[in-house]
Amino acid sequence: MKETFIKEMNGVELKDPILIEGLPGLGLVGKIAMRYLIRKLGATKFATLYSPHFPYFVLVSKKGSVRLLSGKFYYWKSKNGKNDLIFFTGDSQAQTIEGQYEISDRLLDFANKHNAKTVVTTGGYRVETKDKPKVIAAATNPGLLSRALQSGAVVSPSGSPIVGTAGLILGMSHFKKIEALCLLGETRGYLPDPKAAKSVLETLQNMLKLQVNLDELDEEVAKADKMVTRLQKIEEKRALQVEETRKEEDKKITYIS
Amino acid sequence: MKETFIKEMNGVELKDPILIEGLPGLGLVGKIAMRYLIRKLGATKFATLYSPHFPYFVLVSKKGSVRLLSGKFYYWKSKNGKNDLIFFTGDSQAQTIEGQYEISDRLLDFANKHNAKTVVTTGGYRVETKDKPKVIAAATNPGLLSRALQSGAVVSPSGSPIVGTAGLILGMSHFKKIEALCLLGETRGYLPDPKAAKSVLETLQNMLKLQVNLDELDEEVAKADKMVTRLQKIEEKRALQVEETRKEEDKKITYIS
Amino acid sequence: MKETFIKEMNGVELKDPILIEGLPGLGLVGKIAMRYLIRKLGATKFATLYSPHFPYFVLVSKKGSVRLLSGKFYYWKSKNGKNDLIFFTGDSQAQTIEGQYEISDRLLDFANKHNAKTVVTTGGYRVETKDKPKVIAAATNPGLLSRALQSGAVVSPSGSPIVGTAGLILGMSHFKKIEALCLLGETRGYLPDPKAAKSVLETLQNMLKLQVNLDELDEEVAKADKMVTRLQKIEEKRALQVEETRKEEDKKITYIS
Amino acid sequence: MKETFIKEMNGVELKDPILIEGLPGLGLVGKIAMRYLIRKLGATKFATLYSPHFPYFVLVSKKGSVRLLSGKFYYWKSKNGKNDLIFFTGDSQAQTIEGQYEISDRLLDFANKHNAKTVVTTGGYRVETKDKPKVIAAATNPGLLSRALQSGAVVSPSGSPIVGTAGLILGMSHFKKIEALCLLGETRGYLPDPKAAKSVLETLQNMLKLQVNLDELDEEVAKADKMVTRLQKIEEKRALQVEETRKEEDKKITYIS
Repeated sequence: MKETFIKEMNGVELKDPILIEGLPGLGLVGKIAMRYLIRKLGATKFATLYSPHFPYFVLVSKKGSVRLLSGKFYYWKSKNGKNDLIFFTGDSQAQTIEGQYEISDRLLDFANKHNAKTVVTTGGYRVETKDKPKVIAAATNPGLLSRALQSGAVVSPSGSPIVGTAGLILGMSHFKKIEALCLLGETRGYLPDPKAAKSVLETLQNMLKLQVNLDELDEEVAKADKMVTRLQKIEEKRALQVEETRKEEDKKITYIS
Repeated sequence: MKETFIKEMNGVELKDPILIEGLPGLGLVGKIAMRYLIRKLGATKFATLYSPHFPYFVLVSKKGSVRLLSGKFYYWKSKNGKNDLIFFTGDSQAQTIEGQYEISDRLLDFANKHNAKTVVTTGGYRVETKDKPKVIAAATNPGLLSRALQSGAVVSPSGSPIVGTAGLILGMSHFKKIEALCLLGETRGYLPDPKAAKSVLETLQNMLKLQVNLDELDEEVAKADKMVTRLQKIEEKRALQVEETRKEEDKKITYIS
Repeated sequence: MKETFIKEMNGVELKDPILIEGLPGLGLVGKIAMRYLIRKLGATKFATLYSPHFPYFVLVSKKGSVRLLSGKFYYWKSKNGKNDLIFFTGDSQAQTIEGQYEISDRLLDFANKHNAKTVVTTGGYRVETKDKPKVIAAATNPGLLSRALQSGAVVSPSGSPIVGTAGLILGMSHFKKIEALCLLGETRGYLPDPKAAKSVLETLQNMLKLQVNLDELDEEVAKADKMVTRLQKIEEKRALQVEETRKEEDKKITYIS
Repeated sequence: MKETFIKEMNGVELKDPILIEGLPGLGLVGKIAMRYLIRKLGATKFATLYSPHFPYFVLVSKKGSVRLLSGKFYYWKSKNGKNDLIFFTGDSQAQTIEGQYEISDRLLDFANKHNAKTVVTTGGYRVETKDKPKVIAAATNPGLLSRALQSGAVVSPSGSPIVGTAGLILGMSHFKKIEALCLLGETRGYLPDPKAAKSVLETLQNMLKLQVNLDELDEEVAKADKMVTRLQKIEEKRALQVEETRKEEDKKITYIS
């Protein structure tokens, strides 16, 4: 395995597909969004991307089996919509600079092979906020961008960087005559953030006229909120202890002197 | 030397061999196990793996000679068993991400060349315990896994990573139509751990119907235990001194003020 | 995208062009100088350099569009001078050692393709000074160097390193039968330094008999000076606060004891 | 420049040459030794090695000229000895693992091209000693080693690593049917160490029946000793000041409380 490569099931024919990407990143926003859509739509796995630029370990899965880190492609055939969908998500970003460019390249080649004219990338946008996460959009094409804005996104501030595959795909898409849109959910980024993923999915749904029930994401949001609350309590307790220890030590100093 | 390559003696013909790998890693478990088996079975060296992804130094061996870091293959012909064995061990893991994938790739190619259908990788599994080390198993094939479990191993917790060559070989083996099993001995991992290596060898022996006397490993275990005890005493002494120094300083502060 | 490559508009014919390079580096001196010349001369973009050795993010530009990091070539046709000019600037230096050599190689190939016999590289030279920045010169050819010295530059101290593309181009130019000159403006290097860029441009103008009004750079200099003053005040205030906090704490200690 | 390459003057014919290598490393021992021999023997430069694995800067040389980091080959024709000599030294070691292997590979190819059957590498061996530096030897061939021992070297302790080009050349030489010897002068390694270089040269002279006057090295040794004394005084002064500051602060504490 000298280079990134994609292993694909034969015979999958898709109608004007749109490829939607969500790899792990800030708040795992893109990955949470992809996994949710794949599960709720019952999308079918049909290709796997392997790369010597992924971290060099394997993961034990259920029942003691083992799997190489990878990215996976799923397809979903639209019943009456214009576009079939391809979802791409995976275990990891590339760990090297060249690997980042190589994987983005392969994803665009894969889109081309399946005649996808549009790619949507998803991820997180770091912001310290407690409001409902906004969705930040950028695109290679004004028409595509304005569709995202009409669907609830706001335009990305100029000068802002988009790091990793979600960004490079937009940067490299014109080499392959593909249009690309990036949707980033606002997130503090420390912990898995299903709330940000939900915002991204709402915009995606509006744009693509999908009808996926997002309620189950709320359960994940509730869990994540509980986790945050628990972590905050731990942190407050720790701060209190530090404070008390300090007072104790102040007393000691007084006593000694 | 632009790539990893294997230099091999001609004319070695093996009967349904199983390749067993043990490179340095946590507690040197895999390497200690391999070296012990190779020595006790009197296995014969027949191939060497070189790589520009090994660290860039050489080692002076006895009598002022020098050797490049390398991996070495040994074979052992079973007298009445079903499978001949190939052992692989070496000086180092690859130092780069790409090198890790490249070396695992070459090992699987070597297995294929010798018509080995099964590869067993060995190593350490980090755990803070003083009990007899358990052997943690994962495999690409349920039958292979259950043979390991019947031979005394326990199944790896799901989600657990297996880092380095011992893991990647399992992840990549299906590309080469090879089945692979990983056996990891529990170890604290700080020091060479012959006790963990012994646990791994017991499982291996049961599985492969080998009859190797493991008593000499107990001598290494005794030495390692002495070493641990000595290090603990040094540590206790150091802690005591720190404590006394602190008391001395407390007195000084009292005096000064 | 496995390697650095240049995408070029067809049909641009230039007369004995000189290629002038200024990538980001110390004080952004080279980049500021290039951008100013390109704007004031109304030079025309005609080629773009892409590289998998640039950082792996994209930048959102105005109106939510996105661009890959890149280097850009501009040409300017001299009305009555001997030499047309090619300017090269960009977003970033290469992030890997091999990338640094690769990009310098491509730039020299591009110069060769357009029959440029001379390349001038620009950048910053780290010095703690408040005087008008001097311009430090080094060259592959004594004639070229003495032209720079006559135009106001001083010769670089021997043993001094020139880091990055501005240096490697000089080091590698003789492989391509190209002469090269490096002009470095003295700068403290912490902040964008238009004053150092102005010094470089003055030397360049003298050498190339350009007549570009540099007054607008003075506005940038004024802005940069204000920024420096503001940062200094912030720093002084901070130092004062630290001092006061210390005094407060001294009092506290006195009180406690 | 994608790979390390060597540019060579045509028409240099050498009689059974021995290649002697000394790149910068611990105490600059190898480089100091090579430069001294080259100068005193009046050896002639005839080839240059360039590599994209050297650091990515250039050095300004005298008169504002610039040079790429490189390695340089010099030859010396023996008047009545058996062997002509090739010296190799340079500005830097390779900065990447693969580069280290690549450069050693090219050096051995160069030796082969000139029909050199033997390569001697030189460098430093880290030791905290003030005695006359010993010379530590290791070799790929017992005969070669014993010649070094008869010439004043001592055999390297077993298990000792030899880092960088000086070591890899020995490790890789058998791939090219070349015998190699490594001579390391004992050095503390912090500063350029002409005394260690002198020890290495004495052994080399004995082995190769050279008659080079080493007295001028003593001047460098005297300079280096002065430098060490000066640095020690600075260090002692600094330690004294720290001590006094501490006492002052002790008084302050007493006063405050």
